[in-house]
Amino acid sequence: MRGDNEVKKFSVVALGRACIDLNAVEINQPMEETATFKKYVGGSPANIAIGLAKLGQPVGFIGKISDDQHGYFIKNFMSKAGVDSSQLIFDQDGHKTGLAFTEIKSPSECSILMYRQEVADLFLTPDEVSEEYIMTSEMLLISGTALARTPSREATLLAVEYAHKHDVKVIFELDYRPYTWTSTVETAVYYNLLAQKSHIVIGTREEFDILENVSEGNNQETVKKLFQHTPELILIKHGVDGSFAYEKNGVCTRGYAYKADVLKTFGAGDSYAAAFLFALLQGKTLENALQYASAASALVVSRHSSSEAMPSVAEIETVIAKQTWGDKIHV
Amino acid sequence: MRGDNEVKKFSVVALGRACIDLNAVEINQPMEETATFKKYVGGSPANIAIGLAKLGQPVGFIGKISDDQHGYFIKNFMSKAGVDSSQLIFDQDGHKTGLAFTEIKSPSECSILMYRQEVADLFLTPDEVSEEYIMTSEMLLISGTALARTPSREATLLAVEYAHKHDVKVIFELDYRPYTWTSTVETAVYYNLLAQKSHIVIGTREEFDILENVSEGNNQETVKKLFQHTPELILIKHGVDGSFAYEKNGVCTRGYAYKADVLKTFGAGDSYAAAFLFALLQGKTLENALQYASAASALVVSRHSSSEAMPSVAEIETVIAKQTWGDKIHV
Amino acid sequence: MRGDNEVKKFSVVALGRACIDLNAVEINQPMEETATFKKYVGGSPANIAIGLAKLGQPVGFIGKISDDQHGYFIKNFMSKAGVDSSQLIFDQDGHKTGLAFTEIKSPSECSILMYRQEVADLFLTPDEVSEEYIMTSEMLLISGTALARTPSREATLLAVEYAHKHDVKVIFELDYRPYTWTSTVETAVYYNLLAQKSHIVIGTREEFDILENVSEGNNQETVKKLFQHTPELILIKHGVDGSFAYEKNGVCTRGYAYKADVLKTFGAGDSYAAAFLFALLQGKTLENALQYASAASALVVSRHSSSEAMPSVAEIETVIAKQTWGDKIHV
Amino acid sequence: MRGDNEVKKFSVVALGRACIDLNAVEINQPMEETATFKKYVGGSPANIAIGLAKLGQPVGFIGKISDDQHGYFIKNFMSKAGVDSSQLIFDQDGHKTGLAFTEIKSPSECSILMYRQEVADLFLTPDEVSEEYIMTSEMLLISGTALARTPSREATLLAVEYAHKHDVKVIFELDYRPYTWTSTVETAVYYNLLAQKSHIVIGTREEFDILENVSEGNNQETVKKLFQHTPELILIKHGVDGSFAYEKNGVCTRGYAYKADVLKTFGAGDSYAAAFLFALLQGKTLENALQYASAASALVVSRHSSSEAMPSVAEIETVIAKQTWGDKIHV
Repeated sequence: MRGDNEVKKFSVVALGRACIDLNAVEINQPMEETATFKKYVGGSPANIAIGLAKLGQPVGFIGKISDDQHGYFIKNFMSKAGVDSSQLIFDQDGHKTGLAFTEIKSPSECSILMYRQEVADLFLTPDEVSEEYIMTSEMLLISGTALARTPSREATLLAVEYAHKHDVKVIFELDYRPYTWTSTVETAVYYNLLAQKSHIVIGTREEFDILENVSEGNNQETVKKLFQHTPELILIKHGVDGSFAYEKNGVCTRGYAYKADVLKTFGAGDSYAAAFLFALLQGKTLENALQYASAASALVVSRHSSSEAMPSVAEIETVIAKQTWGDKIHV
Repeated sequence: MRGDNEVKKFSVVALGRACIDLNAVEINQPMEETATFKKYVGGSPANIAIGLAKLGQPVGFIGKISDDQHGYFIKNFMSKAGVDSSQLIFDQDGHKTGLAFTEIKSPSECSILMYRQEVADLFLTPDEVSEEYIMTSEMLLISGTALARTPSREATLLAVEYAHKHDVKVIFELDYRPYTWTSTVETAVYYNLLAQKSHIVIGTREEFDILENVSEGNNQETVKKLFQHTPELILIKHGVDGSFAYEKNGVCTRGYAYKADVLKTFGAGDSYAAAFLFALLQGKTLENALQYASAASALVVSRHSSSEAMPSVAEIETVIAKQTWGDKIHV
Repeated sequence: MRGDNEVKKFSVVALGRACIDLNAVEINQPMEETATFKKYVGGSPANIAIGLAKLGQPVGFIGKISDDQHGYFIKNFMSKAGVDSSQLIFDQDGHKTGLAFTEIKSPSECSILMYRQEVADLFLTPDEVSEEYIMTSEMLLISGTALARTPSREATLLAVEYAHKHDVKVIFELDYRPYTWTSTVETAVYYNLLAQKSHIVIGTREEFDILENVSEGNNQETVKKLFQHTPELILIKHGVDGSFAYEKNGVCTRGYAYKADVLKTFGAGDSYAAAFLFALLQGKTLENALQYASAASALVVSRHSSSEAMPSVAEIETVIAKQTWGDKIHV
Repeated sequence: MRGDNEVKKFSVVALGRACIDLNAVEINQPMEETATFKKYVGGSPANIAIGLAKLGQPVGFIGKISDDQHGYFIKNFMSKAGVDSSQLIFDQDGHKTGLAFTEIKSPSECSILMYRQEVADLFLTPDEVSEEYIMTSEMLLISGTALARTPSREATLLAVEYAHKHDVKVIFELDYRPYTWTSTVETAVYYNLLAQKSHIVIGTREEFDILENVSEGNNQETVKKLFQHTPELILIKHGVDGSFAYEKNGVCTRGYAYKADVLKTFGAGDSYAAAFLFALLQGKTLENALQYASAASALVVSRHSSSEAMPSVAEIETVIAKQTWGDKIHV
């Protein structure tokens, strides 16, 4: 996927939200009984960018954060993690960084209490998106939540136009968060529009249902429709049933889950996307990329945060080496 | 352009605003001195639909109007003019029909005082757009103003998806009205997005500049970029310098203006579009279509309204027969 | 009511909305069949100010209008009518002047189609209210609609503080318009608050019910509660049953209706208030003031507009001289 | 202040916000370097109610909280602290509880990062205020922040009407928070309106400047204007210069500060108000009440929270017994 004689500055530039996770320190109890919270950087595209940086990739980030202590924390953390934060803009209109208080009642009962009213990330404007920045990357990763509101929506659509103009591959992580949207029909309109303009689309089966505005949609029909447009690779995740990577040439490769010692379910999808893109960028086979994705996911769900928890290449490869692939699905 | 063995119910279905024009009865004076106003149906796509109906075409309309006396007037008028108004929906949330008070100080000094706060036409929702209705038409005409606000914006984008699904040609009349938009960069994002999905794009040079977010753009570059996508025909109007119809195959046909006894400038573009599409639907040549367009335009600018003033085929053909085409441009 | 040795510049300064009425020229039919509308200045406090000016009183006006042809028309008309318009401010944020399209199906079936979304009059700010202007008047007339929204609400409350500080009598015309308010309980809170700070309160029995947040309230209880505060005189109108003027000292004077050749019902209350205040300022008895009010009202309902129609002293006194007072109620 | 032969259920009912404080666990450093936060109930009127309950008073609370884990925590905590929480309503429209992240860089450098966008407490509606509840209390304590937005503003104004109707004393704690208000002139309008209707007004000199819309106002003028209306007692705090309690009869009593081992400055005013009201309710002299207030304040600033930190009567009386009063001011 790398151009022959051109060296890009970044493998991936991610666009979207960078937020604060406040994870309950005392776990396995209701949040109203929790007295202490630990602060982490969060937000799907921020987590993916951090994950890729931990895997040694040169990564950039386009986003908007509050001009306050939470914003400073995010910028510092991402810079230290190795993400270029030159395009992480401080909001000058008083908008706040989004918060996610996480409640971990048990490994299978996790919930999030969100603070996302008028959050800074959704106030990124088209004027703030740099064509020069995007053209220096091999891939532009878009998080679906960036489409939820004006002006971030238009900033995102413009970023994708820039990517097309400069032959930058567009990766669309559906990342559907119902609370940011006003209606599912509106979500479907923009998800469909962006998917048609993306080279790789990644999401759960439920998220593709949202994109198509259907219930219990069918993978074959989904990929048939999208392959009429830009997409070359579509990755549909089915939870414990594993995932399916569809290529435009008709080939489908199946992924499986690795066994994990689950602490919580947050962050699984972000580590999955980061490791998958890393493997693709390294020229690995699709099957191998799915292994990297599943291994990274298994590691993150066993840890307390989603960003700090992002694994190294060695950790991922240890999981792949130690566990058997594909004979059965682990829960 | 008509399918071989399929007969469509409508030639054109127009989508967008249907409003009220309140034209000064006492003209050639400032509006603040005007005491009496005459009421007409207005709004670019409504005028085009009425114009096409007057030319004998089967036409439908998708839009939203107020559930009050102004809305009833519009629905009655359009039905009587021969436009199918079954998809002209009454707003149930108290939104008003837009108003345009027109001031005619002199033929060259016309201005409009708009009432467009929270107008019903911009509250058309995706759920209210019927796929069945659109598929029964040969063409779907979109007015650019319908893209200005959520939810009409999403309703419009969805209508275009339906059109593509059913091989309905999409006509995009740019119809740029600055007061409906929050920023030109936002306009550019959506205009560009929709133009890429349209078969025919019609606008003034200034409107194409808005679409491209440039100043003093160049026709050659404009059409080169758009012909990479869906467009087959692009019509760029240069005022008194005439208009240029660009085809994907590289041919450009020039149109000229006919002489007119100008009363006011309103409505010229709408009659132009109506007569142009009529001629195309009749299988006329592009040059002939440009003659119909210019003749219709010359007739409407000499009359008091934009909707009631729409000419008949005979009136248009009389202008074409009487005047010389192309030797010079008339102001 | 005039101070002994102090001469005030104005008898009355009115605060609130000045709008446009668009009255159907063709009457006795539904508005959707009406093609022509005649433009007048409208809005309750504007009408009262114009009415007082026509009766020879020095009158000022505090309000906000659109910076467009409709605003210019209002300012010109009020100035020519003799109202000081130095405090009639042009809105610099694009807010429009309110519109009222009137439908006169029959003398008893009149309705109004309002355009009041984000209207300029409700954007008057506290900073724009001049203490110096208010202190030069004997009376400050407040229209209830000015309380409907922030910032006009706070501008009004501040104006009343200025009036108290400088011993200017506060007249509260309830002027309840449901479409400007979000809830009746909110209306009740502000109506009650302002009534407690007013010297004279004028309204219909239905409007006092809104003030008290009750249904079918009782005049005795209404005045008992309000007389615990600032009010000295309370005027409650009961339609065809006449009106009742309650004084703090316990005296109640009844008013009756004069016979009228009714064209429409709009404007009756405004002419009533104007003539009543005029008579009080002239030192007439309360009974005589009620006669002036009823006579003015009878004259306006027989004419096409509410503002231009305001009668002269001679016209009012002719009605009083010609008709019998009090033996029966005329419809 | 207690009625002779009537026993009220509550000494004080407080109305306003109940929120979440998230206090940095690691103190004396910038917040962006803080990883852990401890959760407490916060918000001025909630703190005062909790403080009064800790001093053994029967206390009620009227407010609105989020229907989520943060809301449940508040309701549980206040109930356990002894505050009647029957009128603490869960918001059914998705509004969140306000958050205050506190940064303690040093005892004198404390700042707060607020999350107050569309917070539940400002969505208390007039319909949700119970006249029956208010009438069962001796005092109604209003926090100024409750006036910042509609509908909480109207709910507050209505609560005060109920208090007057049933001879419940109104206590107004100015509690000015600039970030909740759109303009200082708007704040002045409502602060002045409510102060005129309150029996006791408590605030800092700076807060009274806001009320009067002046800079560097003068206590004598402040109390002269307010004593023309309802107020009987006005308490103006001058930081290290102590505080002044003005009575309508002209007497002024001065309060002094006690020495404290300051950890942070938050919560000082709330403990001050709680202990002052407690002493008044106990029939103590004004000077003694000022001692209780200062002692409580000295205790809270030496502790980590504002709510849990509220002192007992014994703790307060120990401070009063141990320290000298009035010979000098302690910082």
